[in-house]
Amino acid sequence: MISLDEKFRALEADSAPGQEVRQETGDLNTLMRGEKLDGIPVDFSHGDVDAFPPTPGSKEAFKDGFEIGGQQAYTEYRGAASIREDLAKRLGTFTGRSISADSELIITPGTQGALFMALGATVTTGTKVAVLEPDYFANRKLVKFFGGELVPIPLHYQGNPSENGPDLNRLEDAFKSGTSVLVFSTPNNPTGLVYSGSSIKTISNLAAKHHVTVIVDQLYSRMLYRGEVYTHLRACEHQPENLITIMGPSKTESLSGFRLGVAFGTSSLIDRMERLQAIVSLRAAGYNQKVLDTWFLEPAGWMEKRITDHEAIRDEMLKIFRAASLPCATPQAGSYLFPQLPALDVDPHSFIRLLRHQAGVTVTPGTEFAPGSGDSIRLNFSQDHAAAVAAAGRIVKLVNIYS
Amino acid sequence: MISLDEKFRALEADSAPGQEVRQETGDLNTLMRGEKLDGIPVDFSHGDVDAFPPTPGSKEAFKDGFEIGGQQAYTEYRGAASIREDLAKRLGTFTGRSISADSELIITPGTQGALFMALGATVTTGTKVAVLEPDYFANRKLVKFFGGELVPIPLHYQGNPSENGPDLNRLEDAFKSGTSVLVFSTPNNPTGLVYSGSSIKTISNLAAKHHVTVIVDQLYSRMLYRGEVYTHLRACEHQPENLITIMGPSKTESLSGFRLGVAFGTSSLIDRMERLQAIVSLRAAGYNQKVLDTWFLEPAGWMEKRITDHEAIRDEMLKIFRAASLPCATPQAGSYLFPQLPALDVDPHSFIRLLRHQAGVTVTPGTEFAPGSGDSIRLNFSQDHAAAVAAAGRIVKLVNIYS
Repeated sequence: MISLDEKFRALEADSAPGQEVRQETGDLNTLMRGEKLDGIPVDFSHGDVDAFPPTPGSKEAFKDGFEIGGQQAYTEYRGAASIREDLAKRLGTFTGRSISADSELIITPGTQGALFMALGATVTTGTKVAVLEPDYFANRKLVKFFGGELVPIPLHYQGNPSENGPDLNRLEDAFKSGTSVLVFSTPNNPTGLVYSGSSIKTISNLAAKHHVTVIVDQLYSRMLYRGEVYTHLRACEHQPENLITIMGPSKTESLSGFRLGVAFGTSSLIDRMERLQAIVSLRAAGYNQKVLDTWFLEPAGWMEKRITDHEAIRDEMLKIFRAASLPCATPQAGSYLFPQLPALDVDPHSFIRLLRHQAGVTVTPGTEFAPGSGDSIRLNFSQDHAAAVAAAGRIVKLVNIYS
Repeated sequence: MISLDEKFRALEADSAPGQEVRQETGDLNTLMRGEKLDGIPVDFSHGDVDAFPPTPGSKEAFKDGFEIGGQQAYTEYRGAASIREDLAKRLGTFTGRSISADSELIITPGTQGALFMALGATVTTGTKVAVLEPDYFANRKLVKFFGGELVPIPLHYQGNPSENGPDLNRLEDAFKSGTSVLVFSTPNNPTGLVYSGSSIKTISNLAAKHHVTVIVDQLYSRMLYRGEVYTHLRACEHQPENLITIMGPSKTESLSGFRLGVAFGTSSLIDRMERLQAIVSLRAAGYNQKVLDTWFLEPAGWMEKRITDHEAIRDEMLKIFRAASLPCATPQAGSYLFPQLPALDVDPHSFIRLLRHQAGVTVTPGTEFAPGSGDSIRLNFSQDHAAAVAAAGRIVKLVNIYS
């Protein structure tokens, strides 16, 4: 039996995005070579909602929620029925399969809340869970927290687009040998890889055949770059018996400050998630829920511009990293870059602290996403364009100083 | 090992406050005697924030949070440092012992979020947890969810004030035989009992002596009625090694729609709670956190008036229940009444559904608070005064019809 100490060691969060402020600078001055680099500090650990502000109307929608009063403050645990009603239609249209607002949709405190409850509803002591490597860092922590057993599946992302994707043979082997849950993100966090239509179809077929529950995190599926195609697993012909899709308006739409997300799919799992929500935090903040009325209803052209703006930052940063021979996959969607660093004279952890201390650049260590990705760093490039590009230059400078 | 099905059966939430809307009326018409009773419907399952609106300035504080932008959207998981700084001072003054804003305080998504994380940080498979009966329904569910073993301790609340309180002999026996965590609420939910100074001192001494972790839910401690005295466990001389105090502005201050709470105490437990928050929902909604800047800083006289108004409702409802010979303890704080019903011709569950269907009165079944409290119902009387009093009359009428 795992002790509480071990359990919480596995949840170590000092390197988690946004927590860097709690780290001590310690002995950095003895490691540091040369002077501090000038430039506007950039925190690539998360998007900058001042550079890319919240969707128009979100503040007003919150105010409407507040004015409604008690009815909006105390919704059902799964969220206000009227909001779910409209949202289910829009999400059904977007993902290619209809959703019952009453039984197949829950509003959650952020996409993180949705993931927590989806895994809590499906993973217990000894449950074997397939987790892609690399993938969103919380997936692994959640599996461990609920007592599950990690079954790592490699995700190839550094080759040609046609070769990239999950190792489907390994996945099938895992399914055949008792893995009962699969959790993954597409677009992938941290690489920006979008699973191909054929990968998604194969995953759906395999999960249906082997009775595997699938939890698919589609947080970034709206920010799809030119020429890319997105395939929704829930629109496939052969559906797994148990499928939960997760989305939220925290990233592309910059609504993270409201803590809103949704999960939709198999009603028996949504029921469990609601029971869990009842003891976790009751509901997504009542007034905040009203902001979901604006989701997928942004002004004409708004989303297109947001995507174009991000694509421009992506392209310029890629150019800088590649000019410096740092391998970096081209994100097909979302706002993450996952460049690989060369061998350095300092350990990766110290380098990341130096980046912050000497260059004013905050990034997330690759080890958060896969134990074997210690030579990579993740950057959320949803930032002020010029500041992000300058910061990418400082990363390259520091790589040169320490290699 | 407990299966997921069992685990989630234990979390059954159809009778939980606010979830009644999901129940089917089913065969009620065959049970119903006589006509429906006229009157404004009252939902006693939670407070009415339209009758008792949110504290002044809360909406504006949220707006300030939104205007701050990215810094407020992405706070540390434990909450914005500047908000914690001021809040720690006010909470330290209120509870009689200073609090380190940096290491001893976490902002949570509601008091429910604080309870979830406090129990998650202290309870694992096999942990023996002392739980009072009756007490807040989620306590028992949380212990079961984390795999702990319930050790029920009777709370006497129907006698004279001097006889009321927890069974301290049973508690000491439990501590002597391996119970390592105690969770309880004072003021007690559902009875409104405030633990006496001597009970609190004894609990603190016993917990210190037997190395028991204490989680004390003080959600209602600000709404204290005339002549009552409140004792903060964390102000006692002999402190348990591990103590977490939980509060929040959802009830007395009517800020539930913002989902805000706090936990403060032993730093190693606050650390664990933050690690848990990181995978549960990242943080209390960033913009919402700013509303805590108004907490404990209400306009002069505001809190006094709120208490007087509630005391008036309490007294009139008590008069009605007692005139009908329904035993009901006098709440010393908070806004819950827990009257006991006589033997009825229908089972308690059906009676509660009839109350809703025939009399427009929603209440929470006593079984949510203790397995043996099936003959009691819980009412949150933070309602429109006249409507609440009329609804109490309809409860008495229905009791007479079915007994």
